[in-house]
Amino acid sequence: MIPRYSRPEMTSIWSEQSKFQIWFEIEAHACDAQAQLGVIPASAAAAVWERGSFDIDRINEIERETKHDVIAFLTNLAEYVGEEARFVHQGMTSSDVLDTTLAVQMARASDLMLSGIDRLLTALDKRAKEHKHTPTIGRSHGIHAEPTTFGLKLATFYAEFKRCRKRLQQAREEIATCAISGAVGTFAHIDPSVEQHVADKMGLQIEPVSTQVIPRDRHAMFFAVLGVIASSVERLATEIRHMQRTEVREAEEFFSAGQKGSSAMPHKRNPVLTENLTGIARIVRAAVTPALENVALWHERDISHSSVERVFGPDATIALDFALHRLSAVMENLLVYPENMQANLDQLGGLVHSQQVLLALTQKGASREDAYKMVQRNAMQIWSDGGSYLDKLKADSDVATFLSSDELEVLFDLDQHFQHVDTIFERVFT
Amino acid sequence: MIPRYSRPEMTSIWSEQSKFQIWFEIEAHACDAQAQLGVIPASAAAAVWERGSFDIDRINEIERETKHDVIAFLTNLAEYVGEEARFVHQGMTSSDVLDTTLAVQMARASDLMLSGIDRLLTALDKRAKEHKHTPTIGRSHGIHAEPTTFGLKLATFYAEFKRCRKRLQQAREEIATCAISGAVGTFAHIDPSVEQHVADKMGLQIEPVSTQVIPRDRHAMFFAVLGVIASSVERLATEIRHMQRTEVREAEEFFSAGQKGSSAMPHKRNPVLTENLTGIARIVRAAVTPALENVALWHERDISHSSVERVFGPDATIALDFALHRLSAVMENLLVYPENMQANLDQLGGLVHSQQVLLALTQKGASREDAYKMVQRNAMQIWSDGGSYLDKLKADSDVATFLSSDELEVLFDLDQHFQHVDTIFERVFT
Amino acid sequence: MIPRYSRPEMTSIWSEQSKFQIWFEIEAHACDAQAQLGVIPASAAAAVWERGSFDIDRINEIERETKHDVIAFLTNLAEYVGEEARFVHQGMTSSDVLDTTLAVQMARASDLMLSGIDRLLTALDKRAKEHKHTPTIGRSHGIHAEPTTFGLKLATFYAEFKRCRKRLQQAREEIATCAISGAVGTFAHIDPSVEQHVADKMGLQIEPVSTQVIPRDRHAMFFAVLGVIASSVERLATEIRHMQRTEVREAEEFFSAGQKGSSAMPHKRNPVLTENLTGIARIVRAAVTPALENVALWHERDISHSSVERVFGPDATIALDFALHRLSAVMENLLVYPENMQANLDQLGGLVHSQQVLLALTQKGASREDAYKMVQRNAMQIWSDGGSYLDKLKADSDVATFLSSDELEVLFDLDQHFQHVDTIFERVFT
Amino acid sequence: MIPRYSRPEMTSIWSEQSKFQIWFEIEAHACDAQAQLGVIPASAAAAVWERGSFDIDRINEIERETKHDVIAFLTNLAEYVGEEARFVHQGMTSSDVLDTTLAVQMARASDLMLSGIDRLLTALDKRAKEHKHTPTIGRSHGIHAEPTTFGLKLATFYAEFKRCRKRLQQAREEIATCAISGAVGTFAHIDPSVEQHVADKMGLQIEPVSTQVIPRDRHAMFFAVLGVIASSVERLATEIRHMQRTEVREAEEFFSAGQKGSSAMPHKRNPVLTENLTGIARIVRAAVTPALENVALWHERDISHSSVERVFGPDATIALDFALHRLSAVMENLLVYPENMQANLDQLGGLVHSQQVLLALTQKGASREDAYKMVQRNAMQIWSDGGSYLDKLKADSDVATFLSSDELEVLFDLDQHFQHVDTIFERVFT
Repeated sequence: MIPRYSRPEMTSIWSEQSKFQIWFEIEAHACDAQAQLGVIPASAAAAVWERGSFDIDRINEIERETKHDVIAFLTNLAEYVGEEARFVHQGMTSSDVLDTTLAVQMARASDLMLSGIDRLLTALDKRAKEHKHTPTIGRSHGIHAEPTTFGLKLATFYAEFKRCRKRLQQAREEIATCAISGAVGTFAHIDPSVEQHVADKMGLQIEPVSTQVIPRDRHAMFFAVLGVIASSVERLATEIRHMQRTEVREAEEFFSAGQKGSSAMPHKRNPVLTENLTGIARIVRAAVTPALENVALWHERDISHSSVERVFGPDATIALDFALHRLSAVMENLLVYPENMQANLDQLGGLVHSQQVLLALTQKGASREDAYKMVQRNAMQIWSDGGSYLDKLKADSDVATFLSSDELEVLFDLDQHFQHVDTIFERVFT
Repeated sequence: MIPRYSRPEMTSIWSEQSKFQIWFEIEAHACDAQAQLGVIPASAAAAVWERGSFDIDRINEIERETKHDVIAFLTNLAEYVGEEARFVHQGMTSSDVLDTTLAVQMARASDLMLSGIDRLLTALDKRAKEHKHTPTIGRSHGIHAEPTTFGLKLATFYAEFKRCRKRLQQAREEIATCAISGAVGTFAHIDPSVEQHVADKMGLQIEPVSTQVIPRDRHAMFFAVLGVIASSVERLATEIRHMQRTEVREAEEFFSAGQKGSSAMPHKRNPVLTENLTGIARIVRAAVTPALENVALWHERDISHSSVERVFGPDATIALDFALHRLSAVMENLLVYPENMQANLDQLGGLVHSQQVLLALTQKGASREDAYKMVQRNAMQIWSDGGSYLDKLKADSDVATFLSSDELEVLFDLDQHFQHVDTIFERVFT
Repeated sequence: MIPRYSRPEMTSIWSEQSKFQIWFEIEAHACDAQAQLGVIPASAAAAVWERGSFDIDRINEIERETKHDVIAFLTNLAEYVGEEARFVHQGMTSSDVLDTTLAVQMARASDLMLSGIDRLLTALDKRAKEHKHTPTIGRSHGIHAEPTTFGLKLATFYAEFKRCRKRLQQAREEIATCAISGAVGTFAHIDPSVEQHVADKMGLQIEPVSTQVIPRDRHAMFFAVLGVIASSVERLATEIRHMQRTEVREAEEFFSAGQKGSSAMPHKRNPVLTENLTGIARIVRAAVTPALENVALWHERDISHSSVERVFGPDATIALDFALHRLSAVMENLLVYPENMQANLDQLGGLVHSQQVLLALTQKGASREDAYKMVQRNAMQIWSDGGSYLDKLKADSDVATFLSSDELEVLFDLDQHFQHVDTIFERVFT
Repeated sequence: MIPRYSRPEMTSIWSEQSKFQIWFEIEAHACDAQAQLGVIPASAAAAVWERGSFDIDRINEIERETKHDVIAFLTNLAEYVGEEARFVHQGMTSSDVLDTTLAVQMARASDLMLSGIDRLLTALDKRAKEHKHTPTIGRSHGIHAEPTTFGLKLATFYAEFKRCRKRLQQAREEIATCAISGAVGTFAHIDPSVEQHVADKMGLQIEPVSTQVIPRDRHAMFFAVLGVIASSVERLATEIRHMQRTEVREAEEFFSAGQKGSSAMPHKRNPVLTENLTGIARIVRAAVTPALENVALWHERDISHSSVERVFGPDATIALDFALHRLSAVMENLLVYPENMQANLDQLGGLVHSQQVLLALTQKGASREDAYKMVQRNAMQIWSDGGSYLDKLKADSDVATFLSSDELEVLFDLDQHFQHVDTIFERVFT
């Protein structure tokens, strides 16, 4: 992933340095277990920990000749450890190292993303409660529907990212497995207890059965979950973009002083962060299909999955991690304009309450047809000429037969709409 | 989905009849709860249950005029219930009915697919145990690697579909929610207890917060899981296709007597079922991206998701359900040829044991370089001239320094490779 | 595709009746060519045309036994033709019939979609010219930028669908090939002249080389083009959805009298057609990836592509055809509100002209810094307090040093922005 | 794209250095045209060419403050050009520079990919002609079908990549447009002749109408074509992988001396290059859907497309360029084993000729049923007991009634199958 959409914390998980460090730890832990079993000398295991090291440039140099990265690493490791290095990797296959390392990296990447979601949840929690009772118009199809509160809007995102958190937690559990089972996964040359030991040390579960490689349905599930989270990022980003439109302007991304264009065209505050997040959602989602295509490896394994993971392993996690933090910052600093929300709510002269009136009329005994006519004729006048729908209804003698002026006032009371806000908040935030 | 890839059990879940029946039940249960609250007369709720009915042709006729399906249904319902029908749907919005119905259908579809997975697991369990000790060559990159057993191969699929089962179970839980919260989800005109009642009756959980619609991240997750399962179907299908190749012929799809081409070209037994499953996997996966794109609805809802779900809701579940049963039948009836497996295993004169020999030589004290040379020169001869690798090694005096004839025999003993089969089976099947 | 998103003209192309009719014609034409070559008796070819027929139910009945659709068809055909039917299909393989038929169907489907695009282009042409000079605000990032005309907006769509038309025309040419080359495509049992004859008769080009099947990169390209067109449909649909928002209301989908909800909530005119088109775009695009996955068939062919094409061949073309006509109707009947466009344009008191003023000041000799300050301080006042930006600038003595009141007026003249509208229209529409 | 899958020629097109160099040229050419029009002083245009330069670090430094890359570049440019820099970029908008630059980069990337395809076509041409008459078994469904030649196999790929070349050429033409039309694309502040001048100088066509940005359906089409080409890469890679299977071994990727594992396990020559290409095909295809999602920008533009293009613009072109060259090298150096092809062909004792015999029997007057029985009973014996199908048929007295021993020989003559190889080669290679 390009630096522009990367945070160093995540990038470092995918660095060559991190990768080889994990390789080293896996090999060293395996040696411990092998020594414990008496398969290799205890001194060899000790030597690996004591003298073992690696040099990335040197590994790359060797790989250019051998065209095999794990052999290059082991050769370089042997240059540090010496003679006893021949006990390293015994009974193992390259995939044991590669796949277990990928599991460690994906687990760590998950942890970072989980904390990204947590930051976002914190921001959403705070802003939702801050605006629990800030009235705003709810819109279906982009058209004014009925009133809601800005806090309720944010509560829906809080609940959604809670679900995303749980999904990522489950995907992390699925992905965090260790395979040290040798060629074609039979443990022919290595005892299963080595796998258990390495798993314990690396914070993983053992893979119950592998075909040399850790099965790729796990990875497919992982990337699919990232795609779902990215789509939720897109939903929130889209909401902000809509709210920031010139004609709506109910909220705006925070605009820093140095940002150009802010003053000669003061209205030109573009929701560029959330537009960017919309694009990044597409990037993250792009990893889903290749990951699904990676599942059906041939027989015990082919290596077609490898290039996909080399690219999308880092790219998708780095981009989503970046997106979660960018979105958190947007939400933390979001400029909210309750007065504009109210102005938009009032824009249609109270027509948004028409359904409420219709309901009240029928409850008071009007036939559905009559009620509809009363509501309609007044609504059409407001729609064409403007004015207050409430006033029109009060002045309608047919309406008066069923609803007093006071009763009508109540129907136009926003609080009617917000009577269950507490209930919903309780459901969501506890 | 076209009939060719449909099972009636699944198709009926998505029929107009089923849909309207669920609509009816939701409305009727909601009436009960409203009556309980005193919002509508108890007699009205009773009337809905007693006289309520619907006629699909009539509904479609009304919809052609009103261009609104829920209104068309309610109008038709009123034609059966009479005057008291005006209490039906009170305080609700169309989405309450539509989304809750979709939840019921997806939950039922999940149950069918879960039983499809169960059937497949049963077949895999049986065949895996049947062939627990059937030797076969393990292949990496399509090239002979080391021996494994056919049972072990199948065990990897058993474990994979177990994971798929768990994922689908979780996705089912996620999707099975009920929203009866009215326009923009505020419960402005309906008490939350109605939602709880309907949820209980329909076997769903309440949706903690909705924006008129049930949030589409749930559906995205659901379809993503179907995509993962389809990819696992593809992996098993691909394995069969490989095994059935003319040059491999280790297993074959069952070939029924009536099937054409079976006798004039007796070799022309094509793995058409598993090839078909490979294509169906692509079809199911095609639903994933649209479902992800459906998440970011505008504001409280737009209706762009609807067409996608009308098409892929049925299509993806029907196709996957069909695939699971087709694959189950393939596995139940799979013709397995252990003698061909053995012949393939033996094809390279024992070269597949070279790594084992290399390991043994170094363990016996040979330097890695020397061991390599001994293994190599004999291997190269077998590779070019054929013959038995074991015989060649026995006749090599350098090798004899380290390994006796008996010791060599042991290294070529397949059982060495299968010593941990029990362990793995225990991990997978218990 | 479900009837809701289908037009009968397109559906009939994909009917069983059409399919078998094309099969019949291919076989009959092939017989003619074979008779011409003297391979089969002329009387046999004549008999096929004279007595040849088919019965769908009967074919399906036979297929249930043989599990092979082409054999079932030929068997049924023989029931009509009699003894001489044994000369039918000689030297051919099923794929010759199936793939050539698919080519015919896709070519016909293309023609229908091309006429759908033509209808849309006609509507866009008409509305663009009608509103060539209708001022409206151009928006970048959803924020007011500079003025444009509604006609110019539409011209961009006209140009885009012109490109789509050309792409579809090219894709149609690519897909319209005929293969009558027998098993594995070698013409071992049939002369290439038969292929040429059938191609000529069916309006196709010959496939230069096939591997039993027509190569699937052609189909992949075809579906990819449908995906691009669907995305252009989405762009226009999205524009309408935006314009119809309550706060913008510059245009609206035509609202028919019978449509419910129109009067009690007169503002509740939802852009449901264009929202629906947004969803349909997702459906059409869903076919792209499976079609790409279909390319890499194994060796001379496997049948994994078949199920994908049975589903997405009809589905993608039917859905896109439907979308093109729905979108055409939307554009033909679109309600356009120039007065609202003007009101939105004026909403910011003329701030949208600030860049024009900045440019003029520097051209008159003001330093960039000074010019910026003048523009800025007045802009900020309008932004916070409202009012007319032009009036503010006229009253600014520093500005007056460079620009007279008349010169300022000119800068606020919308016609300045529209001076090249003719040029652009000429580029686009000629 | 990671270095592992990158060629420097392509990477450099996407470097910061290249990008800013193009920016510079666009601005400088625009100044020339503006000077020609008398809008800016000729000396200013000259100054830009003479003193104009840029410093990437400095640009990045400025961007960190302004958060706007084009302004940062212009500021840095002004540091070199001096006072007259204020005439640079006049009447233009950032997108004019960014989008036209992207067009130049994509056109150059196309040229590189076209030469990659040319290299591949050259290799395919050479190898196809080399093996024009090398017999090999054609396989449908992975099962032996009828004989073909290896040259014919390769001819299908040659024809396919010819089509890919044409598609890419068309996509290149579509993408190579220049927009210098100012904010919202109206040319309000710049004359269209500037656009024409810059287009000419940069080797582009003018964009007939833009909405500030070059319409993204062009880019969508471009990436879709890359996806199709990647899928053709996958088809050829898959073919090699199949041919290299241990049981098939008809061809192998060239195996360099240094590559590890080559000798101790001489059979373990893994088709890692083509497996890798299978994965890279997935990577390239991953760009298609995001590019399709980029089309529907809001109103005159939003910036959601930008991140997608920053990532997939380089990634997809670099990966595909790499793949084309890797695949070319594979084909140039492919080890082909005609003797193994022949051995596989002979594997079934001549059963692959059964259809030919069936056809000959019916042509000689046997009824279809009788012919079938004769072919069948002998085929079944070969299938179960092995031996020569030809010998069996010769010994069958019923068969002898219709076909003499000599006539049978002819039916088993491979040349029968290859009689039209010249015709097909002429179609494909001329």
